[in-house]
Amino acid sequence: MCADITACVILIGNELLSGRTQDTNLAHLGKELDGLGVRLREARVVRDDIDEIVETVNECRAKFNYVFTTGGIGPTHDDITTECIARAFGVTVVQSDDAVQLMSAHYKNTELTEARLKMARVPEGATLIENPVSGAPGYCMDNVYVFAGIPRIMTAMFESIRHRLRGGPPMRSRSVAAYLGEGVVALGLSEIQYRYQDVGIGSYPFVRDGRFGTSLVLRSVDAARLDAAYNEVRDMIEGCNGKPIDGA
Amino acid sequence: MCADITACVILIGNELLSGRTQDTNLAHLGKELDGLGVRLREARVVRDDIDEIVETVNECRAKFNYVFTTGGIGPTHDDITTECIARAFGVTVVQSDDAVQLMSAHYKNTELTEARLKMARVPEGATLIENPVSGAPGYCMDNVYVFAGIPRIMTAMFESIRHRLRGGPPMRSRSVAAYLGEGVVALGLSEIQYRYQDVGIGSYPFVRDGRFGTSLVLRSVDAARLDAAYNEVRDMIEGCNGKPIDGA
Repeated sequence: MCADITACVILIGNELLSGRTQDTNLAHLGKELDGLGVRLREARVVRDDIDEIVETVNECRAKFNYVFTTGGIGPTHDDITTECIARAFGVTVVQSDDAVQLMSAHYKNTELTEARLKMARVPEGATLIENPVSGAPGYCMDNVYVFAGIPRIMTAMFESIRHRLRGGPPMRSRSVAAYLGEGVVALGLSEIQYRYQDVGIGSYPFVRDGRFGTSLVLRSVDAARLDAAYNEVRDMIEGCNGKPIDGA
Repeated sequence: MCADITACVILIGNELLSGRTQDTNLAHLGKELDGLGVRLREARVVRDDIDEIVETVNECRAKFNYVFTTGGIGPTHDDITTECIARAFGVTVVQSDDAVQLMSAHYKNTELTEARLKMARVPEGATLIENPVSGAPGYCMDNVYVFAGIPRIMTAMFESIRHRLRGGPPMRSRSVAAYLGEGVVALGLSEIQYRYQDVGIGSYPFVRDGRFGTSLVLRSVDAARLDAAYNEVRDMIEGCNGKPIDGA
């Protein structure tokens, strides 16, 4: 059995820690990586601080197969990701002619201000990542993929590099819910989990219209085992006098 | 000048990394801590893995004044946070009579299943955190505050311990937006940032109704300096032929 292909996401920006901005990039990347068979093991949210970012990037790129960063590659003074990635790899920051060309095609030449040209500067040796939304590219250094923070641009950049990622078998998932408390299903659930060690079973309580319920999410790379465990969970719910709500 | 009081948030759960669940706890805690003068420096999102959680908790509790964890304290097999906190502190897990009492008041006695009683088990020496929403308490071990993952319960638990936290001067913030690209304001902005090192200025591009704009967020503990920098940013926007939108 091959080792898992793993990944880590680093979300960069003070605005995520002050609560000003609600991140949605992590959940998006998590779903996409699942489908590609890449296991997202961890995420970090770090502030705009050079030492913190450099240290985090170096720790994570040594530990995981892929690292994805979001944020901090715009034209303003608080966009420091590129400087940090360069320091992490021990290289200088250089102007990329290819990046200037991509941006010229997007901006009219008159609008390609000096500040915007900052976005054409990348760590030496970087491979550009196309940005069909607003021109200024992301880039990749070894196993580190550097994306913009704006979700629409981040998503587009991920689509640009999706074909470059090599995952293992895609993670499959099925879910079923019931208006039963977690305390009611807990025992039966742990018995099923014990017998299906190759299926991850997550239990997530919810309140809807004033009623307590539980969503059970099963995950496995093995479709047959997943289905078998799913059917057992369904039966267990009925055994507790619950009504299984498939896919919920 | 006193050293900053710092914090770290650890979000626990596979569902956050698979993208099944969109976290909102981080942004909530970030806002609240800002108001209390506690600097949220970093966040981690970790999966349901004992070694990973123990290691992360131990790293963070040594590095920051406060650590807040969310998730993994329910009654099911995948709720492993309590075991991890106990291991991190080198103590055993014990049943808390106070917790049983809090839960008895919430559940009818007949509903206090063995699975639910798991939620009355806490690391030895823990101080309980009341949960007015669903009874089962969180707890605190030294500088580590252990909250539930469900946002409504997490929020209520935070309110229960708010008075215990000791912060520094609260962070103040003002913001102004304009329909100008970041590339237009970048130069003037970095000049202002250079003169106001004690005011953090963040620049956040947005697209609204098909128009590109930029939100500028200023943060400082010094109200007078904050206002002065704010007025300069406003003037700079007008100097770029933009119309400042206060508070946006």
